[in-house]
Amino acid sequence: MIVLGPNRYGKAEIRVVRVTRNGDAHRLKDLNVSTSLSGAMDDVHLTGDNSAVLTTDAQKNTVYAFARKHGIGAIEDFALLLARHFVDSQPSVHRARVAIEEYAWERNAGSGHSFVRSGGEVRTCVAHYDGSAARMVCGLRDLVVLNTTNSEFRGFVKDAYTTLPETGDRILATAVEASWRHAATPPGGTGAEGGEAPTDWDKSYESARQALLAAFAGTYSRSLQQTLYAMGARVIADCPEICEVRLSLPNRHHFLVDLAPFGLDNPDEVYLAADRPYGLIEGTVLRDDAPPAGPAWE
Amino acid sequence: MIVLGPNRYGKAEIRVVRVTRNGDAHRLKDLNVSTSLSGAMDDVHLTGDNSAVLTTDAQKNTVYAFARKHGIGAIEDFALLLARHFVDSQPSVHRARVAIEEYAWERNAGSGHSFVRSGGEVRTCVAHYDGSAARMVCGLRDLVVLNTTNSEFRGFVKDAYTTLPETGDRILATAVEASWRHAATPPGGTGAEGGEAPTDWDKSYESARQALLAAFAGTYSRSLQQTLYAMGARVIADCPEICEVRLSLPNRHHFLVDLAPFGLDNPDEVYLAADRPYGLIEGTVLRDDAPPAGPAWE
Amino acid sequence: MIVLGPNRYGKAEIRVVRVTRNGDAHRLKDLNVSTSLSGAMDDVHLTGDNSAVLTTDAQKNTVYAFARKHGIGAIEDFALLLARHFVDSQPSVHRARVAIEEYAWERNAGSGHSFVRSGGEVRTCVAHYDGSAARMVCGLRDLVVLNTTNSEFRGFVKDAYTTLPETGDRILATAVEASWRHAATPPGGTGAEGGEAPTDWDKSYESARQALLAAFAGTYSRSLQQTLYAMGARVIADCPEICEVRLSLPNRHHFLVDLAPFGLDNPDEVYLAADRPYGLIEGTVLRDDAPPAGPAWE
Amino acid sequence: MIVLGPNRYGKAEIRVVRVTRNGDAHRLKDLNVSTSLSGAMDDVHLTGDNSAVLTTDAQKNTVYAFARKHGIGAIEDFALLLARHFVDSQPSVHRARVAIEEYAWERNAGSGHSFVRSGGEVRTCVAHYDGSAARMVCGLRDLVVLNTTNSEFRGFVKDAYTTLPETGDRILATAVEASWRHAATPPGGTGAEGGEAPTDWDKSYESARQALLAAFAGTYSRSLQQTLYAMGARVIADCPEICEVRLSLPNRHHFLVDLAPFGLDNPDEVYLAADRPYGLIEGTVLRDDAPPAGPAWE
Repeated sequence: MIVLGPNRYGKAEIRVVRVTRNGDAHRLKDLNVSTSLSGAMDDVHLTGDNSAVLTTDAQKNTVYAFARKHGIGAIEDFALLLARHFVDSQPSVHRARVAIEEYAWERNAGSGHSFVRSGGEVRTCVAHYDGSAARMVCGLRDLVVLNTTNSEFRGFVKDAYTTLPETGDRILATAVEASWRHAATPPGGTGAEGGEAPTDWDKSYESARQALLAAFAGTYSRSLQQTLYAMGARVIADCPEICEVRLSLPNRHHFLVDLAPFGLDNPDEVYLAADRPYGLIEGTVLRDDAPPAGPAWE
Repeated sequence: MIVLGPNRYGKAEIRVVRVTRNGDAHRLKDLNVSTSLSGAMDDVHLTGDNSAVLTTDAQKNTVYAFARKHGIGAIEDFALLLARHFVDSQPSVHRARVAIEEYAWERNAGSGHSFVRSGGEVRTCVAHYDGSAARMVCGLRDLVVLNTTNSEFRGFVKDAYTTLPETGDRILATAVEASWRHAATPPGGTGAEGGEAPTDWDKSYESARQALLAAFAGTYSRSLQQTLYAMGARVIADCPEICEVRLSLPNRHHFLVDLAPFGLDNPDEVYLAADRPYGLIEGTVLRDDAPPAGPAWE
Repeated sequence: MIVLGPNRYGKAEIRVVRVTRNGDAHRLKDLNVSTSLSGAMDDVHLTGDNSAVLTTDAQKNTVYAFARKHGIGAIEDFALLLARHFVDSQPSVHRARVAIEEYAWERNAGSGHSFVRSGGEVRTCVAHYDGSAARMVCGLRDLVVLNTTNSEFRGFVKDAYTTLPETGDRILATAVEASWRHAATPPGGTGAEGGEAPTDWDKSYESARQALLAAFAGTYSRSLQQTLYAMGARVIADCPEICEVRLSLPNRHHFLVDLAPFGLDNPDEVYLAADRPYGLIEGTVLRDDAPPAGPAWE
Repeated sequence: MIVLGPNRYGKAEIRVVRVTRNGDAHRLKDLNVSTSLSGAMDDVHLTGDNSAVLTTDAQKNTVYAFARKHGIGAIEDFALLLARHFVDSQPSVHRARVAIEEYAWERNAGSGHSFVRSGGEVRTCVAHYDGSAARMVCGLRDLVVLNTTNSEFRGFVKDAYTTLPETGDRILATAVEASWRHAATPPGGTGAEGGEAPTDWDKSYESARQALLAAFAGTYSRSLQQTLYAMGARVIADCPEICEVRLSLPNRHHFLVDLAPFGLDNPDEVYLAADRPYGLIEGTVLRDDAPPAGPAWE
């Protein structure tokens, strides 16, 4: 017999920009919000009966209305607020997932109302709420880093298809995609209710980001796997509120160009930055007493 | 204590093109191969000891060498062949995942050696092998379809944030991303060994694709969820070798433009095709007796 | 003294989809329209006086309203209609440029109302109108083609930086971007007025496209430049209404993989498809009596 | 008769990274170089005779070899060096165009060898050389800026298709693409020969960039055209070495969301950031005594 399995639906990539105009020094929040709901949705799939469906259009409207009603502080609080609202207000919605990307802006030329987008790096979070427990994964993507030295690669397996020479000094470059899970169940999205102390999400984010950067810079690397582990372990060591880190690190190869045909040496100076293929190193670092993740990573 | 969790590594996006030159009517296979290995990799993460590491460069070389040695028939067979090779030849490699994308080409102007890329649609597969069992998920992405009628949307929840009017006739458009799991453990990648009958992957793919297209065209849609279920169910009904289908369907909104300010009606004729936000409908359809998926979807 | 130079403004990427519902066999036009106007616009630049500015929002509205009022046949006619309207209706607008991209769809599964996007190839046109003369450039982009043989490359300059070996047989692959200029001033956009015979744009487009494909397939290539010229010359030879062709052909390198380290030969079978860098061959082919282009290529 | 018109060929997107290792504080240059040559190339197009062709592969090799031999200072010097080399060393090459993009990096965590990519903004230059005169256009792209106030839009034409209300306060946002032409013929690429004083390209770039940012922040905007002119004029006023500026400014619309259906006002707080369509404002600002541009903008 054919049956319905796991499913969810929502509105993806709701682009909301909120301006706070306290005097002349305005503040800007620039988000990309995606919502996903699931619950008692068998009928809509099997018969097209929509009576349990909160439309994706209404989900979008809620994001804009909440931006006005509640403001937007840390994206994690906004995500939790939305996730709780959808589940608590709709009997047919049993679980909500709210993912937010935040784009950073800096002040332009000292002006209070003019801004410049800062960089390609994006801050992320994913909140889950199921009516009783909330879960929070934070992260970033497109943080592009490169070490010009302190990276070697040798002692690896040599099979019949291995031609790579060992190297004692290479460029190590990657675009960090990292996500980290908070151990505690966050209290209410507004920070007002709930039994546990509220998290200072901005401070926690900044600590985790700095840990990633410091570990990348400070690790003498024998492999990108070793660097990955060092980065994850540093986040956990520096941030007691975080219990698990997942990293996806493309190895952006920089090949030393052979200039011998032109009568030139190349003492680790001139590199070709390659696109594809690239190595892809993925791994998880966690506390051995991390609580169960539940749906946090879905 | 901080510990290492699940991890894998490999070479992503190895672009291989293979030409078969039997007489004047050449044949072309155009693939994008990504390999991922895991196993006894604790040391490389914890100490940078690479003695268990088959380099991603060797993985790449293997793809090219196998394309020459074994040729490339169905991408599923090539993926299984590679996955088995990595696990069977390296004691430290316990599991392999090989994902392949295939780009289609048609003959150009009746020529035996000239080809035109056909469309944005991409055929995909992901093979897993762990030393005993192999698993296969096939699929496609970027199959863009649109119905101009036979789609309504009404009877949904009206909460305080619902402004969407009900509609009895709308455009329904999506870019299909579908993956389907084969029930049987595939035999050896070469088709030579193994206890079960080999699958005709090309025939199975064509059946699944036709089922998706026919169900999209033929379903009177009360919601995209209903269409999703109909598409998945049709694949399973038409392809007995497939036990589970996962679909991700962005709802590419086409808004009827209000032309009243210009003294014009708009009887379902002129639409604005929107980019973001979009609805996103995700769901699984499966046989109730589908065997456990194991790592097939990872 | 600082002065204002050439300028234009408009609305870019207006996505309009039009459905024609004659009985059960619907017809679908899917366009991306960009408008650009120029004229007596000094004041808006110098003082912010907008009294000469037809808003880009009104330009967008006009596109949608005209899609309803006039329908959409060939994109060239629709572009001319719009260009003429903007210039003829606004005294401050002296010149209009309307560029349109068209995305192709095929019928799905024999259905009259279900469609599948066909391919990555895009049909294009750019119409110019200045109050007296109209000009038309048509074209296409992302037509990806590949020859598996009949391409050599030798006899080139060998300077101190040349290491490329000569080759008697290589893969030749490119993504064709082509534009062709029509010699005649097109009559009115509606095809109704104007002194010259109306062009059958669809037929002309199909002829030019077939000429490009046939020349690519049929030319024994000693260089991509030679193939470019053959393609342009074939368009002009086959289409008397076209006086000039411009081609931009990236040389998508396919490198024969050296499999000797693995004890394998590679008799023109297994290739690596490279991303960057790529060759880029650009050229113009025209009739020696082509009329002046004026602003046609801007 | 069918004839060959303007043409050029080269290697596009040569990715070169150069590390300078003076002690512990390394320096990093990360470039994307595209070369284009033209000259006595009729035969290669007409007959496939390649005897005048310096291969695109040799052009690529030259970029890497010159990075080693001459180092890379300002990208403008490197572009001129390459352009002069191609023309001066090959009789068949009469004109060279070298375009370079530079990606910026910052130091990571105070380390001398660890770097972080800074932003999406890209510095650009295009050098032309024809055997006697060199020309230089510098610029940037993807500089994303936004003003939260001091932007109005009113007093525009109201035709039958105008529905846009006038506004006294709106968000103004754009992604600046700017190019500016240097008046003087640059001396030799190495800065050693030539009759005119060498330009301090880095300083000139920084001045132009600051002028763009300051003018965007400081202009009370009645239209994006007015802001465009102010930005171009400021560059020319602040940089006497620059004679012409071309700007392409997409108007990235931010729509104030109507929250009235939810019983909420929206006093310029919550905006929808739209993708398409977007306004596109293009314009040139120049000195009235700017020397002829020649091929500088091609």
